[in-house]
Amino acid sequence: MITSREEVTKMIVATKITQGFTWKQIAEVIGHSKEWSTAACLGQMAMTKSQAEAVGELLSLSDEAVAWLQIAPYKGSLPTEVPTDPLIYRWYELVNVYGTTLKELIHEEFGDGIMSAIDFSMDLQREENDKGDRVSVVMSGKFLPYKTY
Amino acid sequence: MITSREEVTKMIVATKITQGFTWKQIAEVIGHSKEWSTAACLGQMAMTKSQAEAVGELLSLSDEAVAWLQIAPYKGSLPTEVPTDPLIYRWYELVNVYGTTLKELIHEEFGDGIMSAIDFSMDLQREENDKGDRVSVVMSGKFLPYKTY
Amino acid sequence: MITSREEVTKMIVATKITQGFTWKQIAEVIGHSKEWSTAACLGQMAMTKSQAEAVGELLSLSDEAVAWLQIAPYKGSLPTEVPTDPLIYRWYELVNVYGTTLKELIHEEFGDGIMSAIDFSMDLQREENDKGDRVSVVMSGKFLPYKTY
Amino acid sequence: MITSREEVTKMIVATKITQGFTWKQIAEVIGHSKEWSTAACLGQMAMTKSQAEAVGELLSLSDEAVAWLQIAPYKGSLPTEVPTDPLIYRWYELVNVYGTTLKELIHEEFGDGIMSAIDFSMDLQREENDKGDRVSVVMSGKFLPYKTY
Amino acid sequence: MITSREEVTKMIVATKITQGFTWKQIAEVIGHSKEWSTAACLGQMAMTKSQAEAVGELLSLSDEAVAWLQIAPYKGSLPTEVPTDPLIYRWYELVNVYGTTLKELIHEEFGDGIMSAIDFSMDLQREENDKGDRVSVVMSGKFLPYKTY
Amino acid sequence: MITSREEVTKMIVATKITQGFTWKQIAEVIGHSKEWSTAACLGQMAMTKSQAEAVGELLSLSDEAVAWLQIAPYKGSLPTEVPTDPLIYRWYELVNVYGTTLKELIHEEFGDGIMSAIDFSMDLQREENDKGDRVSVVMSGKFLPYKTY
Amino acid sequence: MITSREEVTKMIVATKITQGFTWKQIAEVIGHSKEWSTAACLGQMAMTKSQAEAVGELLSLSDEAVAWLQIAPYKGSLPTEVPTDPLIYRWYELVNVYGTTLKELIHEEFGDGIMSAIDFSMDLQREENDKGDRVSVVMSGKFLPYKTY
Amino acid sequence: MITSREEVTKMIVATKITQGFTWKQIAEVIGHSKEWSTAACLGQMAMTKSQAEAVGELLSLSDEAVAWLQIAPYKGSLPTEVPTDPLIYRWYELVNVYGTTLKELIHEEFGDGIMSAIDFSMDLQREENDKGDRVSVVMSGKFLPYKTY
Amino acid sequence: MITSREEVTKMIVATKITQGFTWKQIAEVIGHSKEWSTAACLGQMAMTKSQAEAVGELLSLSDEAVAWLQIAPYKGSLPTEVPTDPLIYRWYELVNVYGTTLKELIHEEFGDGIMSAIDFSMDLQREENDKGDRVSVVMSGKFLPYKTY
Amino acid sequence: MITSREEVTKMIVATKITQGFTWKQIAEVIGHSKEWSTAACLGQMAMTKSQAEAVGELLSLSDEAVAWLQIAPYKGSLPTEVPTDPLIYRWYELVNVYGTTLKELIHEEFGDGIMSAIDFSMDLQREENDKGDRVSVVMSGKFLPYKTY
Repeated sequence: MITSREEVTKMIVATKITQGFTWKQIAEVIGHSKEWSTAACLGQMAMTKSQAEAVGELLSLSDEAVAWLQIAPYKGSLPTEVPTDPLIYRWYELVNVYGTTLKELIHEEFGDGIMSAIDFSMDLQREENDKGDRVSVVMSGKFLPYKTY
Repeated sequence: MITSREEVTKMIVATKITQGFTWKQIAEVIGHSKEWSTAACLGQMAMTKSQAEAVGELLSLSDEAVAWLQIAPYKGSLPTEVPTDPLIYRWYELVNVYGTTLKELIHEEFGDGIMSAIDFSMDLQREENDKGDRVSVVMSGKFLPYKTY
Repeated sequence: MITSREEVTKMIVATKITQGFTWKQIAEVIGHSKEWSTAACLGQMAMTKSQAEAVGELLSLSDEAVAWLQIAPYKGSLPTEVPTDPLIYRWYELVNVYGTTLKELIHEEFGDGIMSAIDFSMDLQREENDKGDRVSVVMSGKFLPYKTY
Repeated sequence: MITSREEVTKMIVATKITQGFTWKQIAEVIGHSKEWSTAACLGQMAMTKSQAEAVGELLSLSDEAVAWLQIAPYKGSLPTEVPTDPLIYRWYELVNVYGTTLKELIHEEFGDGIMSAIDFSMDLQREENDKGDRVSVVMSGKFLPYKTY
Repeated sequence: MITSREEVTKMIVATKITQGFTWKQIAEVIGHSKEWSTAACLGQMAMTKSQAEAVGELLSLSDEAVAWLQIAPYKGSLPTEVPTDPLIYRWYELVNVYGTTLKELIHEEFGDGIMSAIDFSMDLQREENDKGDRVSVVMSGKFLPYKTY
Repeated sequence: MITSREEVTKMIVATKITQGFTWKQIAEVIGHSKEWSTAACLGQMAMTKSQAEAVGELLSLSDEAVAWLQIAPYKGSLPTEVPTDPLIYRWYELVNVYGTTLKELIHEEFGDGIMSAIDFSMDLQREENDKGDRVSVVMSGKFLPYKTY
Repeated sequence: MITSREEVTKMIVATKITQGFTWKQIAEVIGHSKEWSTAACLGQMAMTKSQAEAVGELLSLSDEAVAWLQIAPYKGSLPTEVPTDPLIYRWYELVNVYGTTLKELIHEEFGDGIMSAIDFSMDLQREENDKGDRVSVVMSGKFLPYKTY
Repeated sequence: MITSREEVTKMIVATKITQGFTWKQIAEVIGHSKEWSTAACLGQMAMTKSQAEAVGELLSLSDEAVAWLQIAPYKGSLPTEVPTDPLIYRWYELVNVYGTTLKELIHEEFGDGIMSAIDFSMDLQREENDKGDRVSVVMSGKFLPYKTY
Repeated sequence: MITSREEVTKMIVATKITQGFTWKQIAEVIGHSKEWSTAACLGQMAMTKSQAEAVGELLSLSDEAVAWLQIAPYKGSLPTEVPTDPLIYRWYELVNVYGTTLKELIHEEFGDGIMSAIDFSMDLQREENDKGDRVSVVMSGKFLPYKTY
Repeated sequence: MITSREEVTKMIVATKITQGFTWKQIAEVIGHSKEWSTAACLGQMAMTKSQAEAVGELLSLSDEAVAWLQIAPYKGSLPTEVPTDPLIYRWYELVNVYGTTLKELIHEEFGDGIMSAIDFSMDLQREENDKGDRVSVVMSGKFLPYKTY
């Protein structure tokens, strides 16, 4: 019996590695962006029935695993408050160094409120560059003003 | 005697609030983007002599404060490991939820390595939208492959 | 020179105590609910110019303090991750004990997403009861579904 | 041999997912609100013998599991001090942002004391709204004044 | 201007030390047990007007300080999660070593619920003993059963 | 092979639950108070050979388990520094709120030193009361003065 | 007004440094070992009236400071859970590396119980040695067996 | 396959308990002090081939386990930063209370530097005493002065 | 099924210990420095297909394990924020004691920026010395200046 | 009155910034390497009388400050366990990523023991390189074998 969503994540990752799939291939089967699809496979998003079945078929998952993919998972993909992996840490560092800057500029432009992390999308692309290619990430989130009542 | 960079940051913020400057105005005086300039004023970047003097003149800072602006500061702008401010927390949440996704997709595209948080730029814009305007942030960082030796 | 919003909060609280105002009186001057007004005075919400001036007049605050009240503050009102005050701890305990219950029931009713803490209102009332009066709190937040992209 | 209540929680959740039950259906069998019943199934409340047997029958649990359901469990349903799941975090954020507000207003109305988290009930409903449906949660707890002795 | 209850606590403690009062003498003036009175002076309980004035007179506190004594304070008297002071640590150790024992025995006697820390009293006495005197502490708290709804 | 005392604790608890023993019955077999006996079964005290054999016989434990019961265990029965269980948390709260009070009053009565948590006993009783029964706990620990050398 | 024992500790240390006293000289005036006397000056032990006056005279402390020296202080002399100072860290490392060894050997020799840190003395000496002098520390604490009741 | 040193430690401890060996007996077979030998068995020191084989023979360990005993292990024998076990905590308390005293006295005698925890030995003895036997521990570590370069 | 890179690390370490390989031998098979090769085997670097196959052949790893070796792993090799192992702790201590020194000197020489930990190499050698051999480590990392934009 | 070494560090840093000294100039006055001298000025090493006087003269420090420079300071130069400054973090990252590698290779070469952080020196140089200059740091520490006793 599968008793946690993490077990399904591990199955997906292990199958992907040993059978040589890419996240882009998996995303095509799901029918959404590679960003959303990867997050969904890694246990951060809930899939619809047809999305889950498509992944299940591609990666030969059991019916039970397919059922788990449709559940809104307990989110949070990192093992520690401060990530130890250098790639992920750089993003945490950006929050740490630029956090107050983002706050000041969003408030200057929009007033008090937040940028949604739910009504949100992300697009990651390679940006060719003579001095070394760059990672370009566009993040777009709805501005939500604080409600006064 | 000013004995820490934080004191200068507090002076800049207090003067900006009571005299009604915007970060865009300050950035124009500095001559760089509003993103970099705000980060620099908030103690996350070192200014050149002329940048520091321009800020000093606009905000009536002492020579001592202007000297401190040219020092590479001890960076990190948040008071706690997990930020409590809702706007900044949303960014931490993005790292927490999408951290492993970013890792997987960058490795799929570029191999092992990181996206630099140093050779990095950021551009924040309002994106008009009928369902509510959006915050759009473009982040661009050089990909740095792990060196084999 | 006032160099942080916390200083203004302390002034408001000290004046309220020594001059005997209630939060309801302060809320009437601000023109909003006692819940929102108290949060705003305690440094968790930004006021408009006229709201800030009204509070400033009632509590004899300086112009500088009134300017600070209009700034979107760095939010988070508790000194530790786990609150030590017994009244506030009981709310943390509710999150700890009922957190997964809230998650399950909201997902069952609405699907994957969150209840907004920004587009949010709260109403606290005394509920008379023979076995001892009760505190009744109604919380209302917009449901925000996760966006698929 | 089952050696912890967590194992029973995992069995209940896994069975619910793979057999497609809802918490409302489980609550009907238990004979209490969906809020209390879900918390009880997730290991936060002790059931009576008949409640436990009803759940056991519905979900085909062993006698041993049914015995565990009647034990007052070690409560606390979250894996970290600060929850990482965005839905649950929003509740923690409310405590963090509004904690001192709740404290001030309850003291203003009732004097020194707390709102009980034990003699407590909760009701979660969908509130239809043209701008997007809202989650409405009513929390009611007995006020307990500090005893002077 | 006094801007926190901690300042009043420090004044009380400093005056008590330099003028040589005992907690028993202060408790007599307040008119309650030495346990409750000491906790109130140390910022853990709110005093009534007459209690605060009595303490104020005895220790020559200002009117402002007397006003602060009547406010429900932000409770929690220890600087760290795990106390470093050996006397106080022994009490933390008792919770750590006997915590699950207290839980088991209270549940065995009363069912699911808690012992109140609010409707609570404490009495500390010297217990003479040939092998060395003992500290005897009687703690009495109302049992509060979990409400089913 | 049993490789930790925790395994034996889990066996004892599971057997007690499924076979319906009470801690009082187990304490009678051990021949000591219910407080000490429960703590010993929960891995906080070492038993003598005859005590361990009596428990082993009552609960059908293996010889190996009985051997482990006679070992001085690594003590500490809680999974986190701040306990999440509401019943146990109330005791931690008492230490947090009354810790400095206990320190002041013990020092006022006895001078510098501590109340032992080793030469210590505890007695928990139901105290009948018209307004709701109370939990009464008497704690007695030897006072140990700091040695001057 | 002196409002904490830490202020007195800082005065003692500063006076000692600028006037060139040694801890041995201070201990002679106090009339106890250099180990106990240093701990007392650093805010870890309470002095008698005559000890405090002797220190006060030697270091020209005010009467108020002398009064504070006679109070049982809130003990714990380190700023972090894991000490950062290399000399003090080595002692923490010894507890970390040899902690379970000390536990095993004391239990093997004495049975269940602890070595007292209250009825305790310490003697630190230079041990001359051709390969480099050694620090020799003798620690002696009363064994306290767990009481069975 | 044994994949960690901790597994070997658990085997040694379990065998010692069920077969009734003492650490002194094991130390005799190893040919070193009981202090060093216990630490080595508990995974804090590396053994030579002959030491490991002697322990392996006495406790019937596999060849694989004997190979692991010869590896320099990842040291640190405690599960938490602040130990919860009362016996081990007392040693942490000594570091906390006397840490700055040890620092002051070692610097007064030797200048800047540390007492080595590597070139270190420890001897634990029972000290008979009419008022209750004492644990006497002699610790000896080489003084290492900071190198100036 | 292998479901994590840690499992492969454990296999490599266990095989190395029981079959008596050295890291130098493994590095020769991989064809890179012993520093990079050890880090790669310990799960901190991704191998190429041929490197992974060479290690797999030497240590008789399964195809699945060889596939895992080619994945960019979640890096970070220590179980706690502050390492408990004395050898590794000394490096953490160097960062703690010399961290601000490194920062000052690198900024003095290069201006604001960092030393890369990605475009980085390390060489560890024995340095013979009459007073005791020394460990000599040369670290070389590209300087990356902060980009102004 | 100066009551902590940190105050002297702040004075030195502030004077250096406003008067435009470099660490190399300060090191020349001290007569040691720039690495040791900077660490000493930043409160990590104790100076001799003549070194302290030389620094005091150059930076116009008071006699009191010069006395503090000769005291072995409480070491540790970072405000948090995990450093937030990107330059210093990279060094922490190296310990995190390469920590187990350093451990393995030092043990392979030297056996069980540590590399001293006390009998230690460091040399930081610019390494010119066409692809961008590099920071080269040579660290040399005496190997200290664990003593068997």
